[in-house]
Parts: sequence; C-alpha cells; structure tokens
Amino acid sequence: MTGDKTMPLQFQTIGVIGKQSGAVPRDTLLQLAEFLEGNGQRVLLEEATSKRLWNHHMEAASLAQIGQSCDLAIVVGGDGTLLHSARGLADYGVPLLGINLGRLGFLADIPSDGMLTILNQVFSGHYQEEQRFLLQAEINGQTFTAFNDVVIHKWNIARMIELETYIDGVFVESQRSDGLIIATPTGSTAYALSGGGPLLQPTLNAIVMVPICPHTLSNRPIVLGGDSKVELLIGGRTEIGHARATCDGQSSIPLRSKRVTIAKYESMVRLIHPHGHNHFHILRAKLGWSGHPV
Amino acid sequence: MTGDKTMPLQFQTIGVIGKQSGAVPRDTLLQLAEFLEGNGQRVLLEEATSKRLWNHHMEAASLAQIGQSCDLAIVVGGDGTLLHSARGLADYGVPLLGINLGRLGFLADIPSDGMLTILNQVFSGHYQEEQRFLLQAEINGQTFTAFNDVVIHKWNIARMIELETYIDGVFVESQRSDGLIIATPTGSTAYALSGGGPLLQPTLNAIVMVPICPHTLSNRPIVLGGDSKVELLIGGRTEIGHARATCDGQSSIPLRSKRVTIAKYESMVRLIHPHGHNHFHILRAKLGWSGHPV
Amino acid sequence: MTGDKTMPLQFQTIGVIGKQSGAVPRDTLLQLAEFLEGNGQRVLLEEATSKRLWNHHMEAASLAQIGQSCDLAIVVGGDGTLLHSARGLADYGVPLLGINLGRLGFLADIPSDGMLTILNQVFSGHYQEEQRFLLQAEINGQTFTAFNDVVIHKWNIARMIELETYIDGVFVESQRSDGLIIATPTGSTAYALSGGGPLLQPTLNAIVMVPICPHTLSNRPIVLGGDSKVELLIGGRTEIGHARATCDGQSSIPLRSKRVTIAKYESMVRLIHPHGHNHFHILRAKLGWSGHPV
Amino acid sequence: MTGDKTMPLQFQTIGVIGKQSGAVPRDTLLQLAEFLEGNGQRVLLEEATSKRLWNHHMEAASLAQIGQSCDLAIVVGGDGTLLHSARGLADYGVPLLGINLGRLGFLADIPSDGMLTILNQVFSGHYQEEQRFLLQAEINGQTFTAFNDVVIHKWNIARMIELETYIDGVFVESQRSDGLIIATPTGSTAYALSGGGPLLQPTLNAIVMVPICPHTLSNRPIVLGGDSKVELLIGGRTEIGHARATCDGQSSIPLRSKRVTIAKYESMVRLIHPHGHNHFHILRAKLGWSGHPV
Repeated sequence: MTGDKTMPLQFQTIGVIGKQSGAVPRDTLLQLAEFLEGNGQRVLLEEATSKRLWNHHMEAASLAQIGQSCDLAIVVGGDGTLLHSARGLADYGVPLLGINLGRLGFLADIPSDGMLTILNQVFSGHYQEEQRFLLQAEINGQTFTAFNDVVIHKWNIARMIELETYIDGVFVESQRSDGLIIATPTGSTAYALSGGGPLLQPTLNAIVMVPICPHTLSNRPIVLGGDSKVELLIGGRTEIGHARATCDGQSSIPLRSKRVTIAKYESMVRLIHPHGHNHFHILRAKLGWSGHPV
Repeated sequence: MTGDKTMPLQFQTIGVIGKQSGAVPRDTLLQLAEFLEGNGQRVLLEEATSKRLWNHHMEAASLAQIGQSCDLAIVVGGDGTLLHSARGLADYGVPLLGINLGRLGFLADIPSDGMLTILNQVFSGHYQEEQRFLLQAEINGQTFTAFNDVVIHKWNIARMIELETYIDGVFVESQRSDGLIIATPTGSTAYALSGGGPLLQPTLNAIVMVPICPHTLSNRPIVLGGDSKVELLIGGRTEIGHARATCDGQSSIPLRSKRVTIAKYESMVRLIHPHGHNHFHILRAKLGWSGHPV
Repeated sequence: MTGDKTMPLQFQTIGVIGKQSGAVPRDTLLQLAEFLEGNGQRVLLEEATSKRLWNHHMEAASLAQIGQSCDLAIVVGGDGTLLHSARGLADYGVPLLGINLGRLGFLADIPSDGMLTILNQVFSGHYQEEQRFLLQAEINGQTFTAFNDVVIHKWNIARMIELETYIDGVFVESQRSDGLIIATPTGSTAYALSGGGPLLQPTLNAIVMVPICPHTLSNRPIVLGGDSKVELLIGGRTEIGHARATCDGQSSIPLRSKRVTIAKYESMVRLIHPHGHNHFHILRAKLGWSGHPV
Repeated sequence: MTGDKTMPLQFQTIGVIGKQSGAVPRDTLLQLAEFLEGNGQRVLLEEATSKRLWNHHMEAASLAQIGQSCDLAIVVGGDGTLLHSARGLADYGVPLLGINLGRLGFLADIPSDGMLTILNQVFSGHYQEEQRFLLQAEINGQTFTAFNDVVIHKWNIARMIELETYIDGVFVESQRSDGLIIATPTGSTAYALSGGGPLLQPTLNAIVMVPICPHTLSNRPIVLGGDSKVELLIGGRTEIGHARATCDGQSSIPLRSKRVTIAKYESMVRLIHPHGHNHFHILRAKLGWSGHPV
C-alpha cells in the first residue's frame, strides 16, 4: 500500500474484457478491477462490457483502444469470449490471458476463484507466453480472421454441397459433403474434433482440413503446413446461395463469389499462461483422459 | 411373336416412373414401353414423366392411380427416383423394380442396357421379393414418410443445436450436434453412412440413430429395434426456427413444434430384384470392397 | 426378525460368485452371506471364490452345481466376472444379478454399498428381468460361447490378416485388417465400441461385425439379424498360426482349422436388474453423456 | 548409340534393388539394366536381388555399397521394397526412385511399363526431389529406424495393453488400447490411416500418434511437431512380454525394457519423382477420391 509496493513494470495498463452474452460476471470483474488498481495498474474496461456492468468507475475503451494502449488484456468469460477478443486484438500484439467462470476452457484456463494468486505470479514474471496463429479468409473480396476455424458449409438446403479444394494452387479433389472445416491447431479441439479431426499440438505450424459428413468414405482429414494457401471453389451443381462461410462459429457470411481462400494471418496471438501450464493437462481434464495410474 | 405368346399373369398392368429431374431417359422409356406393350401388358406412365416425355402415346396416370391399378411399378432413374416412388406407392402395396441409367444404385440395381433380359426373367416368375420398411415422422401435427432417413438438423445457423432424445418414452440423453439422423436399414447406406453410422442388413428390423458432428465424442450411433418409437425434443437454447426436419434428403420441413416423433410406418415397401440378387455384391461394387482373391 | 419374517419364495437358494482375480471382496461377500442367511436363504459359494475367501462357513459349489440348484446367482465383482459366470450358467437358466465393487458396470449395475436395500426390493418381487443372448463359435470342431464377442485377430505377427466373410452362406467380402469383432448387443459397449462399432439396444436381436483397423477405409461395421450365421475363412496369404479366436477377451484359442462359424447360442442369459433399471442411464454415466439440462 | 550420346552427369552409377519376396521382376530388371548400360551408366544390383535373378551379368553390391557408390537407387517393387531400401540407404544420402510393377504405390509411383520414358526425363534433369524424414526408435538400448511408423502393440495376448505417453518429457496420458502408432507423414497413408489417423502432407514436419482401438473414446490421433521426442512407457498391469514394437510393419521387436523413445532420425530420405509429380493425384487414385467434375 505504501511506497515499497512494486508496480509490475511489464504490465502497467491492463485491458479487461467481459463475456458478451449471458449474465455479466459482476463480482469477478469488480474484484479484478480492485486488485489491479490496488497494484497501481491502469485499467481499461472494454466498452460493451462497461455498458453491461452498471455502476462502476472504470474507464471504458474500445477493443482497438485496448489494443493500442494496454500491455495485457484479461478476458473474463470462456473460450468464446477469448476467441472474439483474440481476433480483435491480433493486430496490436497485446498478449491475452483468459479467466474462466467455473468451466475450464482450452483457452480460458485460469479459474476465477484462484485468479488473484495466479495474476500475482504473472505480474512478478512467472508465466509462459505462447504464440498461436490465426487464419485469414478472403471471402467476397473481403478479409475475415478466425482463431479456431473457417467453415464452408451448406446453408438453407438439405442436400450436400460440392467443393473443389486446392492447396498452394494444386488440385486436391472434388468433394460432396455437408461442408469443410479449415482449422488452426487452436481450433483442432473445437468443431474440427466433432467432425472427426485429429488434435494438433497448439504451437504446431499446421492447418487441418476436416470434411463434414463426406459422401466418399475415404475423404479423411488432411494436415497441411501452416504456410499453405487453401482455395475452395463452390462447384458442380451447388448454387452459391446454398453455401456459407463461418468464422469461429460466430459470424456467418453469405457467399457472393464462388472462390474462398484461406491462409495464415500475418499477426500472431500471444497467450499468457500461468507458469507450469500444460496443454495436455487441459486435454485430460476436458476429454476425460486417464492420468497416471495410482 | 404370335398367338402363343404367354402374357405374364402376375404383372398385367405396369406403372412406369421416370426420373424427375435432369435429362429425360427418352430412349430407355420408349424401349421399355415397346417391350411391355409387345408383351401385351398395359402401361401407365407417371404423369410428371409423361409431361416431360413429349411425343409418346402412353396413358398418363398419377402416382396414386399407378398404386391403385398396377401390379408392378418400374422406376427408371436412380435411387432418388426410387425413394420418391416408394414413399408415394407404399400405401398401395404395389411392388417396385428399379432400373438405373448407368450408375449402379443400392435400390435401382438393374442396368438399363440389360433390362429386357432381366424383365423377361422377372415376368416368367424368376425374381426375389424383399420387404423393407419406411419411417413415419410426426412433425407439426402432420405425418411424413421416409424410406432412407428422417434428419433433424440445424438450419440457418452456424452453431450446434441441442436435442433431447427419448426411446419408447425413456430419456436417452441431451446432445449438442449439427443434428441427428434416424435411418432405416435402407438408409444406412446413405447419409447415415457419411455421418459414421454402421451398415444394417436391408431386412433387419432395426433403426439407427446417428449424431452429426456431436460435441461429446462418445455420442455414437445407436441401433434400436425397428418397433421403437423415437422422440426428439428441440431443447436448451436452440430456437425452433434453427432446426428443421428433412425426409430422404428431399423435403425440408420447418418445425413449428418442439417435438418430433419417429416410428416405423405401417405399410412396407415391396422391392423386386432379379433372381440371384445379392445386397453384398452391391456393397462391394459401390464401396470398393474386395471380392474373392483370385 | 422373528417368525413373521417372510422368506422370498422365488429365490430360496442363492449362488454367490466372487471375482476371480485381484483382491477378494471379503467384506462384501461376508455381508452378503449374512444378509441372505438372515433371510433364511440357502447360500452356495462358488468353489474358486470359496478357496480364495479363507475362514468362512459357507457351502462351496461348482458353477454347474450353482446352475443346477440355485434360483439366483449373485455375482460380486465387475463385468468381467459376470461375463464369465453368464457363460458358465447359460445352460441352466438361472438368472444373474451383478454387484459391482465401486465402479459401475454395464452388467454389474448394483453398487455394493447399497446392495442390501436393492436385494430386499428384488426379493420382494420388485425387479426387472432381461433376456440377452450369447454367441457360440465353432472353432477347430469345438464349441465356445461368448457373451460379449468372438474376435478373430492376428497373433504373433505384425502384418494384417486376410479374412473372407460369409453371412448365411452368402459371400460378403475379403478383408485385410487386424481382425474382426463379432459382437452381441451386450458386447457393443465393449471392444466393438473401441473398434468403432455402434451401440446396440441390449435386447435387440442383432449381431454386429466390426473390422479392426481395416485396410479398406469403406469397410464399416455391419449389423446383422441375430439369427444370422457368420462364417469366417482365414484366407489369402495368412497362415493359420497367425490368427486366433478370442471369446469375451478372456480365452485365446489357436486355430487349427481355417473356418470359424459364429451364431446365436441356444440358451439365453437372464439378467435381474433393480426396478427402474435404465440402460441409457448407465450409458450416460459410463460414456459421459449429458443428462437433462438443468 | 554413338559418340554423341550424352551421359547423364548427375546419375553415373545406379543401384538397382528388386523386391525381396514373391516373383522376381526379371523382365523389368533386365530391361532396366540394358537401358542404363546403353546410357553408359554403371549398374550395381543389390546382392539379394542378384541372387534371385539367375543368369545375369550385373555387378552385385550390398545395400551399403550401393549407398557409398551410387548416385541414384532405383527400386523395382512396391512401397514395401522402397521402405526397406530407404531405411538401408538413409545414412548415405543417395536418392531413391520407385518403380511399381503394376499397382500404383504411394512411394513407388512410376509404372514399370512407362519407366524408360520417365527415366530419360529424370536423367535429363527433369525431376522433382522431395525430402522426407524417418523415425528412430530407441528400444532395449538399440536404435531402429522406420520410414512409415513405429507401432507399440499388444503381442500374444487378447487384452488391451496400458501405455503412458510423454511428449518432450511432458506427461500426456495413460491409455488402454491395442497399441499406439507413431507415424511420419509418409506413414500417414499406411497403418495409421487404417487406425483412423489423418493424412499428413508428405513434407510436413510433423509426427502423428494414433491409438489403436482405445478404450477411452476421446483418445484421438494427436499431431506433433516433427522435432518432438515421444516417450512410451509400458505401464500398469501390462507385462513387458505382452507388448512389442514393430517398425514399418516389417520387423517385430520384443521389448526387454519398459521404455521406448521415438524421434526424428538425423538423415533424410531423398525421393526422386518425375516432373509434375503430384501427391494428391496419387491420393485420388489410391483412395478413390473424385477428380474435377466433367
């Protein structure tokens, strides 16, 4: 409380981002703000979160302002909130740390009830930083980013769609399916896993393509180098209105052009994990794998 | 050629049904008509087929009239045309025989270029009859039939839907997925197979439920007795407008009620196969399985 | 406690069978015996269990004697013990009830710590009986029974084996794989599930064939009528010494003849479940499926 | 034929390796030798091949001598022969070219009946070189190499085995399964594919771990960085004699030590493909994928 308090030098300005839907995690957000301010850290509360959290005195800021001004963004929510924040902050190089509200996330891996202890450790320099990549999709001449996956899928139709796939300009195949998931290693634990895809080590420089209910049974997931350029062409008898692109399961984009290209995005996401973080520990917990035999 | 020609007694009136989309198989239809008339058989041409086949002299008839008057319905098309015809004719007990136009079907198993020889055999009594069942789905208070499958699936939404499943009134589980396929043995070679379901022997009295990209990895296909009553409840946070039912991949039905029930339909489909017909032969041909080692 | 104690009429003589390996469940067995004797029921303790449970006064009996004399066999162990007991008792028609020692089983579904309450209910007539079928395999001219599955698999070899499969005398295919699982509905939750097979309703009259790591990707599980006769022929370049048959994962049988036939066994297994027993409840608990949303 | 014949400078000494089992491809080998000698190239015939090919005048050489002396090794056989040769030649840096005898291979991609044309192109400098990696496994204190995969699997036992897996020293999980496949991208089209693994781009720097029939349904294939060190520990109740390691499906190694480590081998395999070679073309042909719609 007095002059001997050491302010964390690395993380002086902290952005705080709350989950965007459902109940506002009011107690957690206020506890977090009090803690940060007690540390002498400046707090910027993301503006949508700020509007939902009535009766507080924190400074509101857009995601862009958080990106420009903050040394760290703390996301209070679940993996969905972190996906959204990571896409919004990717260009600014600000690292993210995810606090979950009770249910362990693949990304939001710090439980809210122990967050202050872990934040103290992080602020004293005991943490791990991990770089993960995003995808960018060129759709209708516009660019979209995705942290988990870009999915081209049937829309408003009962039948399968037809897609031609190309990797680095080389034709792969024509497939009939419900769609195709193009996922990052981060996304390999999400929709791609439900579709039958493999798990990818989070920092692997690779992209996985997972067909959704393919008509040809030998159409299996394909793992590509992370610097590959994937090109998809809505093909054959499929009308363009019967396919859509979806990024991270959060935004659904009608196609006006038959061609979609997907490649690694230029900026990386920086994730801050507590010291001793272990991705396989999370996989064991989330997927029910067995630990060491007793 | 003359008066000693024996008319096939069993099959005196023959309905002919052509495929409903794409090019009309004019040559095959006319060759078939000439052959049947040459046999002294009466031919009723399904009315939509009749309209598409300009310049012919066959008697046109609705599917219902074919059902009421015919001893056999010959379907000239592919499995899609046969599915459609089987649903339309199920109540009338008229047997169906499927002629494919070049690509072997699971149902339309007689190639058009050898059809006359096989029809001669059939008319002389050398054939196998197989009974297969349909499903009926109660949706929005109406009844729909399906020969392959009833699928409850997401619609106009990127996220998974939530479904509660009940079998004979007993709760099975709440699942989050892209949807759920309820298939007959006939449908086990269709969409259910793409979704990871098993193959069912065609005449097995069983129904298979196949989840589509389920969130929980242990949500596996379930095979039920054919007399089971399946009940699905659009559940949790899924709005009713974001799910639809589709029968045989051919008709997409918006849900106005949260509850869909599916059970065996009261009438069976009668399929006529050439003598020596062998379902596994078709599976080997269609799925690329190995035959006897040479 | 006195003369008005009603002895359970249906279940006067009770066989008790303990698990055959690992620690003897001494406390449970003695508690159970005391309870049964207190009821006035006669208790026969399976002889191998009797030898392992030193210092007790129960009458020892072989499995065959239990089958001949008992009205009920209580199995104290896990699913493995129940599989073994069911095969041994199948010919005698004695019903089985399974008590697990802490870990819920698909078959041994009564937890030992609540067993007395449930047994009281059962003895007063509140129970469900379920009939399940066994398989019999003809191997080397001998007959073996299996409650879960008969597996033909590679042995002492790194390569795949070749098998020809026939159903009711009709050739299905030649497959190269690590082996083939032929499972009952009971076995559909066991090895067949690990091999990618579907779940079968426990009382469904069906058999499922699941190829293990098949070379041809379209070689999928096949569900057959329960009265089918499956015939497997070790084929092609596979020497007979490089394949074995295993029943219920418990006995491994060297093949001396190339041909193995598998069909339903003539006697059924009778399982006693507590009133309100629900197979899907067990599936949810064992497979981590979701229950009703709160 | 005369003095103006240009000898291919890059490839002056050619090793020729024939398939090691089955019929000797005599005609192809002699035609190839005549062609190479006609070019003025020196030919060394692998010694085992030489012994099987009676009545020829080629110089015999061990695999090691071929590695030391040759500028190119031409493998006449199938993928199995190429796997074997690649392991034997990896330390010498000699590139390999694979000629198949009728059945397209993933590695042996040049058909014997068009081989001379393609070899002319290759010798005139029109070819692609691709570098692929091998795995090395430390087993019982010895080192083994594998081009496709190292498999730890059950042996002489009907039950599952227990394995603990570690990646770069970090515990992943304890699994019960029939075994675990550790595959290179090259091996992703082989046994790993039968086990449910994904396809990996051939030059991707990644390793895939595929569990074989895992007891826990969420035990899915994991794709790791190619520089990862995988450590497997035979664990729990599994006796060491009931597990073995197999490299490329060709050599089965009894375990005397509980620990097996697997990592990338230091030398790469150099594959020579004809100009215009396209891995996806081979995948389409071998897996029955669809090409461009007509």
